[in-house]
Amino acid sequence: MLPIQNNIGLYTDHYELTMAQGYFLSNRHLKRASFDYFFRKNPYKGSYVVFSGLSSLLEMIEAFHFSPEDCDYLLSIGFQSSFVDYLRTFRFQGNIHAVREGELVFPYEPTLRVEGTILETQLIETLLLNVLNFESLIATKASRIRLAAGDRILMEFGLRRAQGLGGVHASKAAVSGGFNSTSNVFSAYYFDLESSGTMAHSWIQSFDDELEAFRTYAKHYPDECTLLVDTYDTLKSGIPNAITVARELHQQGHELAAVRLDSGDLTYLSKKARRLLDDAGLQHVKIVASNQLDEIIIQSLLSQGAPIDIFGVGTSLAAGKEDAALDGVYKLAHFDGTPSIKVSENIAKMTLPGIKAIHRFVDQDGLFGADGISFADEPDYEFIHHPTDPHKQKEISKYTKESLIQEAMHDGKNILSKQTPAEVAQYTQKRLKQLTEEHKRFLNPHVYKVGISEKLQQNRNDLAKQYLKKDLF
Amino acid sequence: MLPIQNNIGLYTDHYELTMAQGYFLSNRHLKRASFDYFFRKNPYKGSYVVFSGLSSLLEMIEAFHFSPEDCDYLLSIGFQSSFVDYLRTFRFQGNIHAVREGELVFPYEPTLRVEGTILETQLIETLLLNVLNFESLIATKASRIRLAAGDRILMEFGLRRAQGLGGVHASKAAVSGGFNSTSNVFSAYYFDLESSGTMAHSWIQSFDDELEAFRTYAKHYPDECTLLVDTYDTLKSGIPNAITVARELHQQGHELAAVRLDSGDLTYLSKKARRLLDDAGLQHVKIVASNQLDEIIIQSLLSQGAPIDIFGVGTSLAAGKEDAALDGVYKLAHFDGTPSIKVSENIAKMTLPGIKAIHRFVDQDGLFGADGISFADEPDYEFIHHPTDPHKQKEISKYTKESLIQEAMHDGKNILSKQTPAEVAQYTQKRLKQLTEEHKRFLNPHVYKVGISEKLQQNRNDLAKQYLKKDLF
Repeated sequence: MLPIQNNIGLYTDHYELTMAQGYFLSNRHLKRASFDYFFRKNPYKGSYVVFSGLSSLLEMIEAFHFSPEDCDYLLSIGFQSSFVDYLRTFRFQGNIHAVREGELVFPYEPTLRVEGTILETQLIETLLLNVLNFESLIATKASRIRLAAGDRILMEFGLRRAQGLGGVHASKAAVSGGFNSTSNVFSAYYFDLESSGTMAHSWIQSFDDELEAFRTYAKHYPDECTLLVDTYDTLKSGIPNAITVARELHQQGHELAAVRLDSGDLTYLSKKARRLLDDAGLQHVKIVASNQLDEIIIQSLLSQGAPIDIFGVGTSLAAGKEDAALDGVYKLAHFDGTPSIKVSENIAKMTLPGIKAIHRFVDQDGLFGADGISFADEPDYEFIHHPTDPHKQKEISKYTKESLIQEAMHDGKNILSKQTPAEVAQYTQKRLKQLTEEHKRFLNPHVYKVGISEKLQQNRNDLAKQYLKKDLF
Repeated sequence: MLPIQNNIGLYTDHYELTMAQGYFLSNRHLKRASFDYFFRKNPYKGSYVVFSGLSSLLEMIEAFHFSPEDCDYLLSIGFQSSFVDYLRTFRFQGNIHAVREGELVFPYEPTLRVEGTILETQLIETLLLNVLNFESLIATKASRIRLAAGDRILMEFGLRRAQGLGGVHASKAAVSGGFNSTSNVFSAYYFDLESSGTMAHSWIQSFDDELEAFRTYAKHYPDECTLLVDTYDTLKSGIPNAITVARELHQQGHELAAVRLDSGDLTYLSKKARRLLDDAGLQHVKIVASNQLDEIIIQSLLSQGAPIDIFGVGTSLAAGKEDAALDGVYKLAHFDGTPSIKVSENIAKMTLPGIKAIHRFVDQDGLFGADGISFADEPDYEFIHHPTDPHKQKEISKYTKESLIQEAMHDGKNILSKQTPAEVAQYTQKRLKQLTEEHKRFLNPHVYKVGISEKLQQNRNDLAKQYLKKDLF
């Protein structure tokens, strides 16, 4: 049954191990390296990412080791015994600096930096990308749905369509991105989330008629009764039966909590259902809607005045549709005391050298103005430069400067204080309020400005020249 | 560290548990039920799905239980002690019939059927959907990439962009769908796959120059040396340095295995690289290509004559892009001795009642002609009827009839013989040869015919009439 925690050393790409063995056999493995995590493209055609997965990652890195079983396996597939012996006692002992979990971040920002020996920094690459890319993808989606839904209640329903065991962290990231609860009981248990859920169509079908099904449910759940009303005919059967049960509950001193619509035109049905409920004096009964929802559909429903109080969102959230993946990468930025870059025929794909910091420049209203990337040991800078267009720069001296990078792991030990997903969500919601509306628009959002310091620009250009001396065009 | 196997009873949607408790408290929990698994829409705009995940599912169902820890948690969130006590010794003891792992299946076919008490059949719903939907999504993608790549070697590289722990089963499903190997060492270990991988750009960057990086790698891996040639300049630096190392290896009695292209125009670069290698007498050095590949891009590269021998495919495979999810559902079809349906305002979403079988009608050349769905205890039928259009039918008496459904679990015990993903892949490849080309086309493939028997059609219509007696339009 997938004992990942027993074999976590194997949770990596094969090439991390061939490289690690190569470093080890050529006695280069203790040279110091620094890698950056960053992504190039916002998901969902949006303008930002909610950086997520840091706490999961630190936990997994602390646990990262090679069991005797792992070592036997590596020997069996051809790794050399001197290297495997080194792995037997291997633990990651490097340092990690990162932005806070739940921070809003933007393309090309080195949001997380790993420093240590080349062997240890290389070995954790796959694990790191796997965790950060996915949780950030889902938290970002959740934050968009939260933007669309305003203060309404949001329930995550996606485990059945999640990507296998990916559903475990999907539910966590959904809550840290702004959802109120999840249907996923395992994740609720493991990450201290609220779980929720009531009935499927099969409950209704297993009774002779809908009213009996509703009554039986209400009998056992009188104070938390949400009735699914679309099994046969929402307006002619489901809602009238729900009203009957609501009245019976009321006579017994309870109140029906909600009805759930799971098919049909949700604007049309929610308006009609609201009217029927209100006419029956059931103004307190809430309307839950589900069925292939996402932020765009929720925005459309609400703009048409659909009186929906609670949304259940499944597939598009838990699987991060339409993107399915965040393209985050992990690139060597400093090696053996020297800044390093990967050049490219495309300047936009050239990496930024050295040990870097990120600053956020906030205006007097508390709104984000722009971000700057500089060397970590660089003094204040007055301008940020467009990363690829040498003609564009922006003065940032009138803004208040926030430092975004903090140490998260020191000598292999997680030094962050533990936060629940709900606490992370609070921070993200606060930060989203500091991002101007035009960056939060779903359709063609305004691009958020991220620039680099002059010193960093100069250093990158100097390094690039060393490599790009041949005729490249 | 995510001890899923210790808390597998919680790996479910909350509503499965509220319904299970409701059945239990109303003493209906031992009534017999039968649920069908099926999907409505092919992923990737294709015409078929590779049914996958059966062995994973059976393993998880056999392990499914509620630990003391799980029970404490359920009590803490409000479940009643009599119900939780029932769960303490709960084990799934029902029967499962399904098509073979790796079978080609089509929309609306009940590819898997679960029979047992309503409580046990309901409780495993989420787990079942989570596993089957995801592995089928990925195996289907892999099969499409295999169709595009012909006999070339395919390596799965996606763990870094996979949906968290979803990567574990993604790699397995990639191989059962037709890939030769994976980069994911954990999955290779756990599922007995071949893992592969050599070097990243960081390996090259960590040396003073590319040639030294290549030489060092070749020294440690003289017989399995694939050199990544695009760190600085593929044609002016990477390939010439690879040729130098190939000659040095040859003098030492070894041969360079391959070069890998990971950026730029892969047709242009592979043609130029092939020419340079051939001119150097290195016809045996293979060309590996990677970088955002999928079946459409591979088909395009090969149609332009790109001399690529090996493809590495990551994100689009491991995350099942562009769909990210298969929409498989689990619907009650028989309850307490009686066929059951969920009606709908849309006839295409109405379920098929009863305990059913699937037959494949194969022509004299061994090609698939059509599939039929009937009651399991129904004698031979001569016509299949379009499931929603009453005017369309097809005679199938001239075809050879194959029964697709077999028993996979009996009284809660897995009764299938164990198969490796490579064995499953062989079956899928054999079946793909029986599917005509027009169904395998990527652009607007021909829809494969799936019909229902007259008896099934009649029964469904009769049941529907009972519910749809009111004015529905």
